[in-house]
Amino acid sequence: MPLKSTSAPGRLGRRRQPEVSREAILRAALAEFGEHGLSGARMDAIAHTARVNKALLYYYFRDKDALYGAVLDDFFLRMHARIVQVFDSPDRAGVRLLHYVRAHFDSIAASPYYARLFQREMMSAGRFGSPHLSRIVEQYIHPILQRVTGVLREGVESREFRPVDVVQFAPSMIATIVHYFVTAPVVRKLRNTDPFSPQAIQKRRAAVLDFVAAALFTDRDAGVQLAAQIAACSDGDLPSNPSALQRRRTAPQRHT
Amino acid sequence: MPLKSTSAPGRLGRRRQPEVSREAILRAALAEFGEHGLSGARMDAIAHTARVNKALLYYYFRDKDALYGAVLDDFFLRMHARIVQVFDSPDRAGVRLLHYVRAHFDSIAASPYYARLFQREMMSAGRFGSPHLSRIVEQYIHPILQRVTGVLREGVESREFRPVDVVQFAPSMIATIVHYFVTAPVVRKLRNTDPFSPQAIQKRRAAVLDFVAAALFTDRDAGVQLAAQIAACSDGDLPSNPSALQRRRTAPQRHT
Repeated sequence: MPLKSTSAPGRLGRRRQPEVSREAILRAALAEFGEHGLSGARMDAIAHTARVNKALLYYYFRDKDALYGAVLDDFFLRMHARIVQVFDSPDRAGVRLLHYVRAHFDSIAASPYYARLFQREMMSAGRFGSPHLSRIVEQYIHPILQRVTGVLREGVESREFRPVDVVQFAPSMIATIVHYFVTAPVVRKLRNTDPFSPQAIQKRRAAVLDFVAAALFTDRDAGVQLAAQIAACSDGDLPSNPSALQRRRTAPQRHT
Repeated sequence: MPLKSTSAPGRLGRRRQPEVSREAILRAALAEFGEHGLSGARMDAIAHTARVNKALLYYYFRDKDALYGAVLDDFFLRMHARIVQVFDSPDRAGVRLLHYVRAHFDSIAASPYYARLFQREMMSAGRFGSPHLSRIVEQYIHPILQRVTGVLREGVESREFRPVDVVQFAPSMIATIVHYFVTAPVVRKLRNTDPFSPQAIQKRRAAVLDFVAAALFTDRDAGVQLAAQIAACSDGDLPSNPSALQRRRTAPQRHT
């Protein structure tokens, strides 16, 4: 039926809501851009994977570059929201900092294509400049980094943390969090295992938290123990979970 | 003079030796591939920067892919040689490990394009596989990683290091070393400074050594102090310098 395939809602049909389609498009686009980059990605393939017709795709996103920008924004918006909640919790600096490490790690683990997408973005930025990178740095990365260095400073001042250079410590910590996902193809080759299996992710998360805590806390043993507790938390107990945050605001601190 | 431009030595002239040209080509190619990747790089541009004619370029390297492979090998061969010397030194595990961190950091700092080149390689490996990546992982990365985990195990057994999971600790450490160079475009944007200036490199090197030592040594204060000493070493005193290695083999240990 040619008429159907050219009308905007087309394959969408009655079963799916516009928000569902938009999310399906963003998810399919993230995978396509993550594999092929901006220039190699095909709108056809994205429409096919998202199970929407191309007209609908262009109805939501005027061109490939706009869709690419929306994919980046979608990821960073979620990550930013999740991370800000962690910083807004009433806990002391050490607890907030380690919960931030976990939230950042979990955000990427939930969306492994992102790390490669953003890495591409950073590399193309070297020569050509990139409007997306500027926007993302200004809207998301810079504010998150401000919060991270703020908590680090707070902990250094209260002597909960060693007197580290926070401007250097923050990127070292972020490197430990994200690099695993960027090097996943090499990890797969070296160890012949799936770096994204739930077991591998759980082990890696615990190791990242342990590494950061051991390098940072004045009382290293207490820091490492706290890191192990936070690594073992179920998702429902995390401050990035709104109901848990509510409980934490009204209850005495749990990690002391 | 059209005859001159088609003869192999051409612009090379009498002033330069073949080895000098080969090195100039590899240097120019590293920059070109680092900026544009394998597909975007132009042989013309490489010949121009290296100040050799294209015939000579193809005389040394049969095609662009062969040149690309040679660039990767050239970097890893140097880095491997430098790092192996560090591991072969007679020092205790803690000294060797921190000297390795410095040698790895300095290898990349001396050739900042490499980090981006290798990152591209890893990303394209995700989908298409990459013959270069397989070779480099087998010939260089795997042996280096074996040495790194070996020294980590040695230090854990002698209790100089905390009882860390060495398979997880090694990539965390490497992340801290290399990620700075990959994120350089973002760092430039955030701080509006040159991440490759000698001052920035010196500061970063000290911070990386401090971070690793603080996370690893059982006696953290001693580890952090040793890291500061090794960060402050002049190049001539490093074990990756052959004459220094000779001195160190015949002299008592300096970092104790």
